Amino acid sequence: MVRYSMIGAASNAGGELFRMMLNHPETKLMHVADGFAHGQRLLDTFPALNGFNEYDLVIEDVDDASVEKLLSDTDVLFLAVDAGTVSDYAEKALAKGVKVIDFGADMRFRDAKVWEEWYKVKHKNHEMSKNAVYSIPEIWRDKAKNANLIANPGCYPTATTLGLYPLLKTGAVVKDTIIVNTISGTTGAGRRPVFQNLYTEMENNFRAYGVATHRHTPEIEQNIETITGVKHIINFQPHLAPMARGIHATIYCTVNRDFTNEELYDLYQAQYKDEPFVRVHPASQLPNTKWTAASNFCDMAATYDPRTHRVIICSVIDNIGKGAAGQAIQNMNIIMGLPETMGIYMPPTAP
Amino acid sequence: MVRYSMIGAASNAGGELFRMMLNHPETKLMHVADGFAHGQRLLDTFPALNGFNEYDLVIEDVDDASVEKLLSDTDVLFLAVDAGTVSDYAEKALAKGVKVIDFGADMRFRDAKVWEEWYKVKHKNHEMSKNAVYSIPEIWRDKAKNANLIANPGCYPTATTLGLYPLLKTGAVVKDTIIVNTISGTTGAGRRPVFQNLYTEMENNFRAYGVATHRHTPEIEQNIETITGVKHIINFQPHLAPMARGIHATIYCTVNRDFTNEELYDLYQAQYKDEPFVRVHPASQLPNTKWTAASNFCDMAATYDPRTHRVIICSVIDNIGKGAAGQAIQNMNIIMGLPETMGIYMPPTAP
Amino acid sequence: MVRYSMIGAASNAGGELFRMMLNHPETKLMHVADGFAHGQRLLDTFPALNGFNEYDLVIEDVDDASVEKLLSDTDVLFLAVDAGTVSDYAEKALAKGVKVIDFGADMRFRDAKVWEEWYKVKHKNHEMSKNAVYSIPEIWRDKAKNANLIANPGCYPTATTLGLYPLLKTGAVVKDTIIVNTISGTTGAGRRPVFQNLYTEMENNFRAYGVATHRHTPEIEQNIETITGVKHIINFQPHLAPMARGIHATIYCTVNRDFTNEELYDLYQAQYKDEPFVRVHPASQLPNTKWTAASNFCDMAATYDPRTHRVIICSVIDNIGKGAAGQAIQNMNIIMGLPETMGIYMPPTAP
Amino acid sequence: MVRYSMIGAASNAGGELFRMMLNHPETKLMHVADGFAHGQRLLDTFPALNGFNEYDLVIEDVDDASVEKLLSDTDVLFLAVDAGTVSDYAEKALAKGVKVIDFGADMRFRDAKVWEEWYKVKHKNHEMSKNAVYSIPEIWRDKAKNANLIANPGCYPTATTLGLYPLLKTGAVVKDTIIVNTISGTTGAGRRPVFQNLYTEMENNFRAYGVATHRHTPEIEQNIETITGVKHIINFQPHLAPMARGIHATIYCTVNRDFTNEELYDLYQAQYKDEPFVRVHPASQLPNTKWTAASNFCDMAATYDPRTHRVIICSVIDNIGKGAAGQAIQNMNIIMGLPETMGIYMPPTAP
Repeated sequence: MVRYSMIGAASNAGGELFRMMLNHPETKLMHVADGFAHGQRLLDTFPALNGFNEYDLVIEDVDDASVEKLLSDTDVLFLAVDAGTVSDYAEKALAKGVKVIDFGADMRFRDAKVWEEWYKVKHKNHEMSKNAVYSIPEIWRDKAKNANLIANPGCYPTATTLGLYPLLKTGAVVKDTIIVNTISGTTGAGRRPVFQNLYTEMENNFRAYGVATHRHTPEIEQNIETITGVKHIINFQPHLAPMARGIHATIYCTVNRDFTNEELYDLYQAQYKDEPFVRVHPASQLPNTKWTAASNFCDMAATYDPRTHRVIICSVIDNIGKGAAGQAIQNMNIIMGLPETMGIYMPPTAP
Repeated sequence: MVRYSMIGAASNAGGELFRMMLNHPETKLMHVADGFAHGQRLLDTFPALNGFNEYDLVIEDVDDASVEKLLSDTDVLFLAVDAGTVSDYAEKALAKGVKVIDFGADMRFRDAKVWEEWYKVKHKNHEMSKNAVYSIPEIWRDKAKNANLIANPGCYPTATTLGLYPLLKTGAVVKDTIIVNTISGTTGAGRRPVFQNLYTEMENNFRAYGVATHRHTPEIEQNIETITGVKHIINFQPHLAPMARGIHATIYCTVNRDFTNEELYDLYQAQYKDEPFVRVHPASQLPNTKWTAASNFCDMAATYDPRTHRVIICSVIDNIGKGAAGQAIQNMNIIMGLPETMGIYMPPTAP
Repeated sequence: MVRYSMIGAASNAGGELFRMMLNHPETKLMHVADGFAHGQRLLDTFPALNGFNEYDLVIEDVDDASVEKLLSDTDVLFLAVDAGTVSDYAEKALAKGVKVIDFGADMRFRDAKVWEEWYKVKHKNHEMSKNAVYSIPEIWRDKAKNANLIANPGCYPTATTLGLYPLLKTGAVVKDTIIVNTISGTTGAGRRPVFQNLYTEMENNFRAYGVATHRHTPEIEQNIETITGVKHIINFQPHLAPMARGIHATIYCTVNRDFTNEELYDLYQAQYKDEPFVRVHPASQLPNTKWTAASNFCDMAATYDPRTHRVIICSVIDNIGKGAAGQAIQNMNIIMGLPETMGIYMPPTAP
Repeated sequence: MVRYSMIGAASNAGGELFRMMLNHPETKLMHVADGFAHGQRLLDTFPALNGFNEYDLVIEDVDDASVEKLLSDTDVLFLAVDAGTVSDYAEKALAKGVKVIDFGADMRFRDAKVWEEWYKVKHKNHEMSKNAVYSIPEIWRDKAKNANLIANPGCYPTATTLGLYPLLKTGAVVKDTIIVNTISGTTGAGRRPVFQNLYTEMENNFRAYGVATHRHTPEIEQNIETITGVKHIINFQPHLAPMARGIHATIYCTVNRDFTNEELYDLYQAQYKDEPFVRVHPASQLPNTKWTAASNFCDMAATYDPRTHRVIICSVIDNIGKGAAGQAIQNMNIIMGLPETMGIYMPPTAP
């Protein structure tokens, strides 16, 4: 039985983690803490979870004493905290032999200076960032196996990197030609009450944000470089769509040779046929975000455009499923030696 | 291991049944049949279920030979077929010792003449209807235990009857004063492509339907009579809301004595505190339909209005969860001697 | 040319008023003021109005000097301010001969004590409330003609009262049997960023609120009494639906004689056939809220249930159209001697 | 007074045209015809228009005699008919001196062979296509002035071409680097009841379609060539979003020199500052589709990414407003010598 706790529990990632963990036979929630919501009951924060009495917990504070207590009977600590504060908690946890899975970006960059540049915050522990394991399991599970500190990937980078991976490995993608156009549901915008995210404002509405400046850009670039050994400069452009869950990434890559759609399908199938959470579709069956709702799946299809010599990849996930909580549990299973699909091989809830 | 099959598989109830059953450790899907969709692959009908290879089945026809074959290795048959045709299939199944759970209304009425009057179809087997067990398990599970033929309740009657039950038992509800105002998500309107149910037409839209004529009216009246021994004539009024899943019932009852909200809360808690699928809230915490999304839960809260001497009960479910597939599995567990919560004690997917 | 100003401009009612007024040939916006949003540009508050340069105004403060200045060149003042503060502004305006149309409830009650009881605020000017004219023009336009102070009706009471009016006048409605079940879109919940009204929380969600306590209850009761001379005690129950605009009222009345649906249709047509903003439908064509989107229309249909001796009326409006800004302009036209439909006889925007 | 008629009236473009024309003081609807919906009342097809009695028309058939009669008292004919059938109607109309505005693509291509290749239909009148005037008025109004046959542009090409125009004119866009990623609301998918467009399927859902094959690709390419004199091969990729109205185009162009965002803003403002229907925003205020709902506006903002040397343009319209009916009326005003903004300078309906 894995005893787990979470700091930053009153987040959408937290809510989804707790929901999914109810399906996991080998875990037990020990503590929930949150800098903003402490003192609340967890079941009031997430009323849909009423009746699951193992979650009848009060959200704890994040001061030193509380964290000390929390770590004393925890095996795995999940973190969803402010940028720049991860190392504070992680240092304490690792010192006590508690493994850490971080939902944030603090530990995602081998070179913490890149992080500092895009996140505009001073990084307190460059060494820790260097040694953390960034794990999309379908690509980097071997590195994750012995990790004590997992940097759980961002939602957009997960959909994008899984979609790009087989094509990148062919070596056919021309340098600096990748454009990643994405949309996300509103759970990606968090639980803070912001005017622009009110139902009234977002229903029947669509908008871009973070043009040329979104922080997931360097994360995707790092992944491409890790896979290919070549530094690509990309455009990554997110948008907000009127839906609660789901990411759709449309990825454009110029390639240096011709493909057929069948060839692409075979290439992707060959890569992912044994992956339980990746479902490759032919170009004739483009994935719908709804096919992955509330699940850990990533669905994709690749198409070649002979007119422009570009491959167009559509890759979809649930942003708080495979894009956050699902992948975090997948990583937990890996580092704790449990079957990788345990608790998360659940069907999507469409419609 | 319970071997189950479904006729009428290409329905919203079917899709949800298959989704939920993936969480059930003691069942195996043997056959899927459908009068309209035969010849299609089940995974093309419900693409979100791709990857669950036990469902890689072709939808079969519903002619005699196909049904014969289907029944030969089936323990429990689920039916979601046209009004008036249930007894055809049920007779064959029961004759072979196959238990039947019907999603339709054919077998819900002790007196099939009431059914004929509201459904405008001739009933072929009044005796079968009389002997079928109508089972909302929280109220009638004892009768269900030895049943071979279960009439699975309608979605609106489930939310309504569970909401009314504790109050009705007090004897305080004045005859003929019950008004049931309900809304449903669009999955309740089925999968047939109808102009009025297009996204374009239904988004940002709300409308009533079936005023004074909806077929769930006599079903609710029968339930009230079964519970109280008194025939109440009610108004039941459904509406369609721009959401995929969810039923919200707002029930008004004139009562013959005063209550306090605390008294009502205690009354409801006393009734349901040991029920795993019913969650009673105080009047200060009105249930949201989203708290039950994709689950088998029913959430409710009762309030007393001293000005009008009416109790107002809000009762919510997922119409294809507790309102269809979830309750059908709950009934299957009962008739097959399995733990009643097996496979369906899953948390809702909010948000 | 009517010179108008608004205090409480940064509200949904304000935004809709300004949008509609662009279609009005005989008005000119002079000042906008708001206690919360002063200092902002009006076109930043309502970016959809960019390009309409007559609205390139800075939102003014609501201190005495600002209000003084605002009143100096204003003919009609619209108010959307906090409960209890209306008389402060209205006194100043009326003293200067500026006519006032108030969106709030302060002036809606002939007996301000009823207001105090439901709104839990002390009323500063009972006499003003007594003399204000509450005007749903289709019923009370004659009284409005010479008014200096209009209490613009609430959204729910507008849909409900128009729906009840022809039936009430028959004298057939049994005392204390009226139940009004309503739903509203989220614009009714205002522009304040509240967690429960985030897109993430409200999409695919439905919930009741204010059970037995909603402040529109006594307003509807006052209207019924004004029309019939009899005090009815009613239940009024609102709900929030996942849509931006629209109110659907489902009204149940026990009647003391039988009707046919045709008789009801004729009754309603007879009442409203010359009303430009009321559209009566037969029972076979129930109104959709979308048929009234962004307009000043009220659509309705009445049905008789011979089993229960109840008439069920479905009445729909746009809550910020006929339910707020549209009706306010209609009232302005009346008090300023302009054609009543001027500027607001616009078609709904469905789909 | 311009007497107009429409063939293909029972379409979303038709509904929006009729809605907008109610605001136009110089037009009168004479006839509505539709190959599928003839015999229906127009007000039953578009129930939101009830009460506007000038529209109390029966939809006529499209046989020769009906069309003959329709043309006899029509000044301008709007067409929304099947690909390949436009010239049949247009020939008859032009022969009688009736001007034609076509919503379809038949007449959009100077070279009808390009049309044949992408639309897979034989074109019956290449000469007519060559001579028709393709008119986005902000770019080609001078050509439109004397036209008898207007090819009204496609929705995606309108948003895209307006967004590209100022940048293309600088000559800075590198050949074959343009990628146009777009999303549309569901009104763009028409009124036919298709399973995939049901509310249940589309809510909370997002999907791409027509990868590398969408028919608006050559239309955009033709526009770019007309503007620049250079043939660019582009990627145009549409998606369907869960919203009824709105197009968002995100356009990526590699440029051969550096820009600043201020420079881009000035460039766009210089182009469009006198255009009543184009609203240019700075890069810090990205347009929302909702800002253009139910209007003839196009809102845009351009941003430069110095890392990738790409300009990213966000351009939004209402797909059935500026993308169809609004622009058609704008073109009608031009060819009939009326003020270009007449009837369509209406504010958007947000929220």
